[in-house]
Amino acid sequence: MNKKLDALRQEMKKENIQAYIVPTSDDHDTEYVCSHFMSRSYLSGFTGSAGTLVVGLDQAALWTDGRYFIQAKDQLAGSGIDLMKMGVEGTPSISSYIVDHLSSGSVVGFDGRLFSEAMVEIYEEAFDKKDLILKTDLDLVDRIWKDRPVLPHTSTFHFEKQYAGKTMVEKIAAVRDILSADHLMITKVDQVAWLFNLRAHDIPSFPVAMAYAIVSQDKASIYIDDSRLDATSRELFAKNHVTIRPYDAIYTDVQTLTGTVSVDPYTINSTLYRFIEADIEEEENPIELMKACKNEVEIEQTKHAHLKDAIAMTQFMYWLKTNVGKIPMSEMSAAQKLHDLRASQADFIEDSFATIAAYKEHGAIVHYQSSPETDVPLQPEGLFMVDSGGHYYQGTTDITRTFVLGEITEYERKCFTWALQCHIRLEQATWLYGCTGEQLDMIARQPLWKHSLDFKHGTGHGVGHVLSVHEGPNVIRWQQAYTPFEAGMITSDEPGIYIEGQFGIRHENEVLAVNLDKNAYGQFMGFEPLTWVPFDVDGLDVDEMEPAEVAWLNAYHAKVYEKVSPYLNEQQRQWLAHACRPLIR
Amino acid sequence: MNKKLDALRQEMKKENIQAYIVPTSDDHDTEYVCSHFMSRSYLSGFTGSAGTLVVGLDQAALWTDGRYFIQAKDQLAGSGIDLMKMGVEGTPSISSYIVDHLSSGSVVGFDGRLFSEAMVEIYEEAFDKKDLILKTDLDLVDRIWKDRPVLPHTSTFHFEKQYAGKTMVEKIAAVRDILSADHLMITKVDQVAWLFNLRAHDIPSFPVAMAYAIVSQDKASIYIDDSRLDATSRELFAKNHVTIRPYDAIYTDVQTLTGTVSVDPYTINSTLYRFIEADIEEEENPIELMKACKNEVEIEQTKHAHLKDAIAMTQFMYWLKTNVGKIPMSEMSAAQKLHDLRASQADFIEDSFATIAAYKEHGAIVHYQSSPETDVPLQPEGLFMVDSGGHYYQGTTDITRTFVLGEITEYERKCFTWALQCHIRLEQATWLYGCTGEQLDMIARQPLWKHSLDFKHGTGHGVGHVLSVHEGPNVIRWQQAYTPFEAGMITSDEPGIYIEGQFGIRHENEVLAVNLDKNAYGQFMGFEPLTWVPFDVDGLDVDEMEPAEVAWLNAYHAKVYEKVSPYLNEQQRQWLAHACRPLIR
Repeated sequence: MNKKLDALRQEMKKENIQAYIVPTSDDHDTEYVCSHFMSRSYLSGFTGSAGTLVVGLDQAALWTDGRYFIQAKDQLAGSGIDLMKMGVEGTPSISSYIVDHLSSGSVVGFDGRLFSEAMVEIYEEAFDKKDLILKTDLDLVDRIWKDRPVLPHTSTFHFEKQYAGKTMVEKIAAVRDILSADHLMITKVDQVAWLFNLRAHDIPSFPVAMAYAIVSQDKASIYIDDSRLDATSRELFAKNHVTIRPYDAIYTDVQTLTGTVSVDPYTINSTLYRFIEADIEEEENPIELMKACKNEVEIEQTKHAHLKDAIAMTQFMYWLKTNVGKIPMSEMSAAQKLHDLRASQADFIEDSFATIAAYKEHGAIVHYQSSPETDVPLQPEGLFMVDSGGHYYQGTTDITRTFVLGEITEYERKCFTWALQCHIRLEQATWLYGCTGEQLDMIARQPLWKHSLDFKHGTGHGVGHVLSVHEGPNVIRWQQAYTPFEAGMITSDEPGIYIEGQFGIRHENEVLAVNLDKNAYGQFMGFEPLTWVPFDVDGLDVDEMEPAEVAWLNAYHAKVYEKVSPYLNEQQRQWLAHACRPLIR
Repeated sequence: MNKKLDALRQEMKKENIQAYIVPTSDDHDTEYVCSHFMSRSYLSGFTGSAGTLVVGLDQAALWTDGRYFIQAKDQLAGSGIDLMKMGVEGTPSISSYIVDHLSSGSVVGFDGRLFSEAMVEIYEEAFDKKDLILKTDLDLVDRIWKDRPVLPHTSTFHFEKQYAGKTMVEKIAAVRDILSADHLMITKVDQVAWLFNLRAHDIPSFPVAMAYAIVSQDKASIYIDDSRLDATSRELFAKNHVTIRPYDAIYTDVQTLTGTVSVDPYTINSTLYRFIEADIEEEENPIELMKACKNEVEIEQTKHAHLKDAIAMTQFMYWLKTNVGKIPMSEMSAAQKLHDLRASQADFIEDSFATIAAYKEHGAIVHYQSSPETDVPLQPEGLFMVDSGGHYYQGTTDITRTFVLGEITEYERKCFTWALQCHIRLEQATWLYGCTGEQLDMIARQPLWKHSLDFKHGTGHGVGHVLSVHEGPNVIRWQQAYTPFEAGMITSDEPGIYIEGQFGIRHENEVLAVNLDKNAYGQFMGFEPLTWVPFDVDGLDVDEMEPAEVAWLNAYHAKVYEKVSPYLNEQQRQWLAHACRPLIR
């Protein structure tokens, strides 16, 4: 590992750079990047999905969030890279760390295509105070990464209207309807995929193509290598006057735009932003909200996807609970079994993210990835947390269940129950239109906060429709979640509790925001579950629960049985009836 | 009423003004104003504590909030003044109403001393779009209000350290410690009263003197008529170099300030703001937060005040519940009885606001004031809501109880229970430091929202220490409540439900924010009740409640009995034991 940092430092010295920043991103502000863009992981050895590495000439530090504290500590051990825990009191921000460590007049370098314009402006302001100089046109990692994977180039496929609910033409018209500027820059790959009903396989678990687009009032262009396009899409584009331009041509084309351009400074890459010469109107890309509010077809199709997923998950739970201790199984083999069950469902595309299968203390690593080095056999004892999901043509799923494999401690039982109470409280929440994720999160966390416990991640994230399993703007967390919930938004409900070195628990369903009564007080709203899989009631201490919570759980399990049992064999069905038994309090 | 508007319109014509705005305020942004400043009430006949009147040459309209919709509708009937319901969909803002009704080049007039600088800037921006002209130096109401009450001029008294916890000198030093500007403008009368430990009787229920102050790093001045000052305060000022300046001299003195001046644009009056020639640093006045976080002495003393208040309230409840239907009583006579019981407690100063004693459908008028015209006899049936409080030397109280005087409907019973569940949920809330009133409100409203019901007022407001019964910055409501709760803040917890023409219910305690566990997750916080008076359990449907809520109520009532019973006679004590009986679910 140190060799890589040394090589990078040689390049930094050549360019007279004193600090180099390597984020986890690509040119499109993508959360999970393809291997070509895994520079931070390549340099640091930390494989989590989020983190920023700062390399100085003598020191290096990596910032990541609460999901990855334990994992990063392990993976960075001995690397000479300090771990910076984001959100923990006393952790400096990246910019203040750099300002503190560099002398006035020093140079900070990075590749401006990997940072949003908003981020670069924050850096500029912070660095300006100490007269630090920015060099933003340098991909130094590329110079030292000899076997760097190439940019992905998978074939696209057309996402049918029967799944998308609206055609490309309808969507472009809707965008133009609300666009006040002359042009709209579309730089996030899932925005492009949604708008053109286009999918591909450029990134594992994120079925999109690396592409940009510009929609003007009288013109629409997509920036993608023509040779990748499927026949249906090419035909559609030709018929509806969508211009196909080479991927890199975006950088030259933006210089020719005139009038006003709508740009989201929080997602466009800074290099591209600074090529625009026309008047910029900064605003959130309107596609974000349109994409988040699922249309009727998307909702109906998503329900089909969730039923398939529920069948696979229930079969998995049956296999796991009836076989543990009898046949050999491990974190990795169980994850493979689950994948195989999902894959046997019709219209399965791929897993919607890398399954987290975490036994006992591995569960405390929020985004644990089992590997041959860490894999452990499952025994008939303790807790086994499995966070997984699938992309089907009908929709995307994301579910976590925590399975009781045998005896558990009283403390594990209490934590299991309190976390499930959090889950239920959020599913039961009712609110007036206008409430945000920051507010709803209060309701979710009460049962754990009452016991001075918390979990250091959001309670819920938006879920894309055969796109990213994480999407905005809907999010449920107690800070910085300002978007009011709209009917049609699909969000996860996934409280948890993580005790380092002991266990991890998470209970996750996906929920749909729906309109309830509208009266003089306003528009009341609530959530409907989309996920129909038993929670493992073997982990519950029913005495800790309120009767209303038990009633909710019993009603939920009755529906699970009703929906899933017709697709099971007799043995599985009998087992499910027991798994869904009503609890008494 | 029309005569007054006609007279005002004559004056408007003389000044060539097409619209004149009359708010509910004084020169200090005071919520409850003294009679001298009741211009809006004088002109419109609407006596509520909040509202803005706009008089055009042919039309007039009055804006008020949800607490006063019913009352304002009644009082404005036949006045020719349209009621504008703030916060209701479709209601125009004051500025957009004026812009819509006036032609370009028209003149809008008001007295700039009655508006904050921030408000005037909003008007200027809105009016500028239609080239409306502002005239802000005109008190037209003064010209037509022949018997206008004079400005108050009551004698001050020193608020002893045994009640205040800190001396004036300590407070001024603390202000200087956090002041980054050269001077701090102190324009709210309770800020002045808090800083100098000074009280008076200028405004009913608000024991302050009309005064300003300026604190500089090397100087402190108070603007108040010298002849009003008590000997102790005058001596203190002399000894500690506090300059006493005439009340009106603030307008000339601010013109001599140099360097930087810290000013809160949301509370300083616009006329005064625009007299300042030095550099202005706009920020919330630091005294607001210092004043809101009660010190140990204030907290301890407030607990004494609440015990006195609990004795008076319990005696009142005993009298009411045992005598209704047997002796004549009415809204007004009951309120008088309650006042007399409070006044018989040692160190009682005055009621902390005008008691709301509202029987049956009057309860639906959120801030109902009984008068000889509206007073009704109390019968042994229905609900009687009493919202009241007292200033004692030890502290300020604010409490609402809704009494069951006899038979009530099933719907009343359910609403009574749901509103109490809201109250209990907020008292039981636990949160991590950083959470705001916008977030806590979610927890409070769930039990009513679940039934598609709501109340159109905040769930809680800050309470001053022998100052205003309403103070900021702590507030609990689901929109625009951004201040994190700090230990030592005292806030009301007062959900309610109001069914027009039928009944009103409100359950109010005051609660103290306290620090609970501090661990790796952060600083956990919660509320402790300060109010110890029985809720009328005759109104409850226990089956609607969760066991945890019933347990909270039983524990609360056990404490009420323990605290209050030693101060009652035997008959009252027996009655209280029954009133505090444990409920079973």
